[in-house]
Amino acid sequence: MIEGKKIEIGSTLTYGQVGGGEGSFIGPVHRAAIALNGGVKIVAGSFSRHYDVSLKTAKNLGISEDRVYKDFEEMAEKEAEREDKLDFVLITTPNHLHYKAAKTFLEKGFNIVCDKPLCFTVDEATELVELAREKNVEFMVTYTYTGYPMVREAKRLISSGALGNIRIVMAEYPQDWLSDPIEREGQKQAEWRTNPKYTGISCCVGDIGTHIENLVHFGTGLEIKELAARLETFVEGRPLDDNAYILLKYESGASGNYWSSQVAVGRANSLKIRVFGTEGSIEWEQENPEVLKFTKKGEPTQYLTKGGNYLSGAAQSATRLPGGHPEGYFEALSNLYKFYVNRLISKKRGGKANPYEVFPDVVDGARGVKFIHDCVKSSKEGTRWVDATFKI
Amino acid sequence: MIEGKKIEIGSTLTYGQVGGGEGSFIGPVHRAAIALNGGVKIVAGSFSRHYDVSLKTAKNLGISEDRVYKDFEEMAEKEAEREDKLDFVLITTPNHLHYKAAKTFLEKGFNIVCDKPLCFTVDEATELVELAREKNVEFMVTYTYTGYPMVREAKRLISSGALGNIRIVMAEYPQDWLSDPIEREGQKQAEWRTNPKYTGISCCVGDIGTHIENLVHFGTGLEIKELAARLETFVEGRPLDDNAYILLKYESGASGNYWSSQVAVGRANSLKIRVFGTEGSIEWEQENPEVLKFTKKGEPTQYLTKGGNYLSGAAQSATRLPGGHPEGYFEALSNLYKFYVNRLISKKRGGKANPYEVFPDVVDGARGVKFIHDCVKSSKEGTRWVDATFKI
Amino acid sequence: MIEGKKIEIGSTLTYGQVGGGEGSFIGPVHRAAIALNGGVKIVAGSFSRHYDVSLKTAKNLGISEDRVYKDFEEMAEKEAEREDKLDFVLITTPNHLHYKAAKTFLEKGFNIVCDKPLCFTVDEATELVELAREKNVEFMVTYTYTGYPMVREAKRLISSGALGNIRIVMAEYPQDWLSDPIEREGQKQAEWRTNPKYTGISCCVGDIGTHIENLVHFGTGLEIKELAARLETFVEGRPLDDNAYILLKYESGASGNYWSSQVAVGRANSLKIRVFGTEGSIEWEQENPEVLKFTKKGEPTQYLTKGGNYLSGAAQSATRLPGGHPEGYFEALSNLYKFYVNRLISKKRGGKANPYEVFPDVVDGARGVKFIHDCVKSSKEGTRWVDATFKI
Amino acid sequence: MIEGKKIEIGSTLTYGQVGGGEGSFIGPVHRAAIALNGGVKIVAGSFSRHYDVSLKTAKNLGISEDRVYKDFEEMAEKEAEREDKLDFVLITTPNHLHYKAAKTFLEKGFNIVCDKPLCFTVDEATELVELAREKNVEFMVTYTYTGYPMVREAKRLISSGALGNIRIVMAEYPQDWLSDPIEREGQKQAEWRTNPKYTGISCCVGDIGTHIENLVHFGTGLEIKELAARLETFVEGRPLDDNAYILLKYESGASGNYWSSQVAVGRANSLKIRVFGTEGSIEWEQENPEVLKFTKKGEPTQYLTKGGNYLSGAAQSATRLPGGHPEGYFEALSNLYKFYVNRLISKKRGGKANPYEVFPDVVDGARGVKFIHDCVKSSKEGTRWVDATFKI
Repeated sequence: MIEGKKIEIGSTLTYGQVGGGEGSFIGPVHRAAIALNGGVKIVAGSFSRHYDVSLKTAKNLGISEDRVYKDFEEMAEKEAEREDKLDFVLITTPNHLHYKAAKTFLEKGFNIVCDKPLCFTVDEATELVELAREKNVEFMVTYTYTGYPMVREAKRLISSGALGNIRIVMAEYPQDWLSDPIEREGQKQAEWRTNPKYTGISCCVGDIGTHIENLVHFGTGLEIKELAARLETFVEGRPLDDNAYILLKYESGASGNYWSSQVAVGRANSLKIRVFGTEGSIEWEQENPEVLKFTKKGEPTQYLTKGGNYLSGAAQSATRLPGGHPEGYFEALSNLYKFYVNRLISKKRGGKANPYEVFPDVVDGARGVKFIHDCVKSSKEGTRWVDATFKI
Repeated sequence: MIEGKKIEIGSTLTYGQVGGGEGSFIGPVHRAAIALNGGVKIVAGSFSRHYDVSLKTAKNLGISEDRVYKDFEEMAEKEAEREDKLDFVLITTPNHLHYKAAKTFLEKGFNIVCDKPLCFTVDEATELVELAREKNVEFMVTYTYTGYPMVREAKRLISSGALGNIRIVMAEYPQDWLSDPIEREGQKQAEWRTNPKYTGISCCVGDIGTHIENLVHFGTGLEIKELAARLETFVEGRPLDDNAYILLKYESGASGNYWSSQVAVGRANSLKIRVFGTEGSIEWEQENPEVLKFTKKGEPTQYLTKGGNYLSGAAQSATRLPGGHPEGYFEALSNLYKFYVNRLISKKRGGKANPYEVFPDVVDGARGVKFIHDCVKSSKEGTRWVDATFKI
Repeated sequence: MIEGKKIEIGSTLTYGQVGGGEGSFIGPVHRAAIALNGGVKIVAGSFSRHYDVSLKTAKNLGISEDRVYKDFEEMAEKEAEREDKLDFVLITTPNHLHYKAAKTFLEKGFNIVCDKPLCFTVDEATELVELAREKNVEFMVTYTYTGYPMVREAKRLISSGALGNIRIVMAEYPQDWLSDPIEREGQKQAEWRTNPKYTGISCCVGDIGTHIENLVHFGTGLEIKELAARLETFVEGRPLDDNAYILLKYESGASGNYWSSQVAVGRANSLKIRVFGTEGSIEWEQENPEVLKFTKKGEPTQYLTKGGNYLSGAAQSATRLPGGHPEGYFEALSNLYKFYVNRLISKKRGGKANPYEVFPDVVDGARGVKFIHDCVKSSKEGTRWVDATFKI
Repeated sequence: MIEGKKIEIGSTLTYGQVGGGEGSFIGPVHRAAIALNGGVKIVAGSFSRHYDVSLKTAKNLGISEDRVYKDFEEMAEKEAEREDKLDFVLITTPNHLHYKAAKTFLEKGFNIVCDKPLCFTVDEATELVELAREKNVEFMVTYTYTGYPMVREAKRLISSGALGNIRIVMAEYPQDWLSDPIEREGQKQAEWRTNPKYTGISCCVGDIGTHIENLVHFGTGLEIKELAARLETFVEGRPLDDNAYILLKYESGASGNYWSSQVAVGRANSLKIRVFGTEGSIEWEQENPEVLKFTKKGEPTQYLTKGGNYLSGAAQSATRLPGGHPEGYFEALSNLYKFYVNRLISKKRGGKANPYEVFPDVVDGARGVKFIHDCVKSSKEGTRWVDATFKI
């Protein structure tokens, strides 16, 4: 027996995609996450630099040839002229194209979903934020981990005061896939991830450290005041960092300690966050995402689990299946799309946004970019405490 | 960064559905699981006894009105006449209609996917098996739990001899949703699940005990020889069992102990299987599905995890995302659809079936029906050992 | 920093021991468990059939030669005549001597601590119970697992009604040390454990199944009404059982399922008990003894841990160290001795027994012997339900 | 059935104790840990500043009145004159007396066991090290956590090269007992622990951070080169730190991140260490001490457990009970005493020390004192990297 939330949105929207052609990994993942919700249809795209690849992808997806484009500039141009305008544009290109693609579609007034990182520099990020505000569009940046039900329950618990005043944040994101110099052995992902040209000024902080920053901010609302970072490179010859320690002082007086690593042998994708307050603490691990450990001071630790009737609407609205029916990464990403699409729909209808249906937006994307730069700066200056306030 | 298996099939097939209209839970779950793969499109259906409900569902799904039907008889009739014949028909009606719906489409030569249980009686099951063989169709019964990557790794480990000769199978499936008489408080699922008319001769064994039976058979290949069961009803006034203990002797000389319960307070959906052999043992839990514990005699227990490079093709072929990116119930079900659709495609092309892409079929469905009947019989006769061999 | 309960009793008692000479394992374990409490001194003994071995052991223990005896008969005789009579006698001989040794000392009016199993037959057990009552002595049988703090908390939770009415007991005790025929390869423990002459009518149920029975009775107070058992022997040529399944009906209407095994590869000593009631459930595992999982219906599972301030006196009185400082098997056994010795002291002083300071006694020992016999009987009669009421 | 290592040493030694009178907690814990081994007897002591308290303690312990002393000076004087000289002196006074007591007995040539921290200043530490070397005595500092069997297996694995070159050390020790200002509510332990006069220059690093330092050094052999620390005080009015983050560079090029906290609500005593190398990693948690997680690059994580036959002599020599029979804090401390006493015995006999029977000594104690000072220094200077090499 299973029983649970409706997963179909009951309204049909359309989107186009930049990137995600044959050979891409993340592009199809996004499409599948969208499909899981139902009600949203892909109808246009520029999936590859190679037009024939784009055409092939389009064919598989049932997109008519006249809405397949040579590049995103053409796509923005042509799609902007249509009456049946796309409800949103999804950008899943390599990182170094995010900024330009986003800007191009923003200027035409499209709603946008862009994979993280938003862009490479703080100036670019500022520009995108301002443009999005000016055009009054909805701009989601897909920090997937904020889509998990128990992350949302954690956020609600914290904002309800269940932990009292936050004192300590311990967060980490160890992986091991870059333990060896696989970028020199033909591994494509590793090649571009470790190459400053395609990945920006940081590898480890940029790729995964930024997920920590986003998750902590999403869950706690804490604003970073100062940070002291040490970025390290363990694999010889690698031009960017593959391990990083970051100490933090938040505006509120709380402190934090983040660790991200791509050379932690035995760890696949172990994002974990712990928050300790004056009255309680929580702990959540991405690899075991359906459990949220919650301890009130002086009481036994409680294991809150996805689907429990005692959970708030924050978790319930991100839940598709009853308790004990595991949901994972796809569902988390799909939840973000559900919230995003519902926002588009309610905006169209002039309704109010559901307070639970929040998603990381262009400001969060900009915050992430700023964080990466602050970490690199501190590390270069000998792990000095640097000002890391964010104001955009 | 994530990186993994292709999830798009690259070929477009069509299906129609019986059941799954507005208000249904499991119907949309199946559609979402199918959508997650891409490449398969719903184009026809009879979604409800109420035609207007069917029409509404069809509209939401983008199905043209002329392929929406009043009932499955009409659907079978009309769809059988089309040249663009459906690649398969999906049956997600309430249980008591499975047999009739399946039979009707089988007679017209359709490939079928039917939710479990296949039907109510052993005679019905036998008839469906024979009909499926006669028509040479592909008939999948959606025992979802066989779709998990680590279940497939367990199956491969066992068949490779890694456990030696199997001695002991301990398996359990506790839930707690029927701990109180909610069927008398308006809970619809509980109403029909506990009603012999809609659910058959057993509630607890029929609904979840049969998942244990299927999972053990799928994973180990063991054939049951005799069983001794005790079915119990803890909630007063409930006409069927809500707790069951089953002892087993397998043909091979191994023995087993199954427990299924719907009144085990604190357990959501805790299907768990442990297999002990002369040379090793394995353990797998559905609520933590990405881990397979494997112990070779005299060695430390190993935690095999989804996405590990050391896993066999059996697990890899059921994996969409890299290690540490959790996949759950939807993905397990979606895997079964991927294997099923790939079977249809390879059959069309005259190719060989991929040995890893196995799925539970009509014979497995029949085996489940027989198991339920054997359990009920033994329990009625005082937990007597009864012959429980299965030969269809 | 650590901080916790006093562990010294503050009063000096004396004991003598039968068995436990050089080469014995369990004898020194008991002495160490006693020493851990302080305040109790060994002053006499007959440690071995070989007098020279006894003398050597005595010397190491600082016992004067005149209180070392050739056999337990002589010891009982001579020690009974002394004015500074032993406060208790500890029996840690091989199993087949328990009855005779216990009887001999009982007749002289000694308080007794005897390792489990108490004896071989129900008649013997009955005789010992009656003799102990007649002589008004304190007779502890060392079912060690009842000494863990979290077992005591579980007992208190259950008796307080926190679980409502108990419905289901699932308990198991898998080990793997007899997976191979090591009794034919010179392993001494295995030799006598699998030999009916020294171990009685059952190996697996007798050695470890009886721990399940005792733990369930201790924790829940449930009285067995009927049981249906299947005892199996997987290792060829072994005269006794090495695996057993036992189904139970309790007087209260609850039901149970016990599994004990000595051939479960990968399991060392995995005693585990789960109790499900109408209002909640608990789970405890001996290999992780400081945690008690407790779920109230509809609430998150709580992990109660040793040392928590929220625990009752039942757990606190069995706790020596603060939370997070693990205590294990020695401490559990030592707790039983603490309770036993405190009982002796309060009896001397005419005080009341502390209700928390309970320990398994001769009646519990007798109950265990009866249980073994009932299991063997049912199994021999084809897993028939047999009357298993216990009244002594 | 249980079966395991001999726990009796088979030789009788004597010791005297300074501190540990009525009302002390840690004093009796040490005595119990010693008693668990057998073969070592307490015969003298100065247990308290109050002579009557000392006398009472002595009486309970069976010590003759003529070996009870007013203070440690008198004790050192008188005991030094005896022919039946104490085999060692145990110091379990409050911290601020460690130095003076140790020095006094060292000067008389006694072997010493002293609780950690060894003393308050680096100068004191240096003096004690030099004195111990000059007198050629055995001086153990009781960093208890090094006594766990699986810590010893970890040490052996690492030294055998199983992890390759160490890159990263993540270690933490969160507690929550000082989350509130209980030192102002009459809690005695908290009073002196947070008072610089009795505890020295650091509370959190001094009490528990130093355990991290010791455990990492013991397990890995890594020598610290530089560290950058941030010591924080969350509870208002507390004069010393209650939370600390420490980043480390080791001589070898590895890096580390330590966190210790006394205000981490929900954590009792959660010392945990993770070491990542080029070829593998290990993880160990004090609250679950019988498990050592070990991952070789590209292979499944293995859970090595106490008592496993596959473990080395390093673990076996610290093991008393077979696998699945939990051993904890007492046994870990008792192991240190066993190794220490065996060292004394083999030294007497002129034999060689067993390479597995190592224990933290006066140099390790000094290293801990130096570490505390380096952390405080770095923190005061704005988390600056400070030279933290240790050479005594």
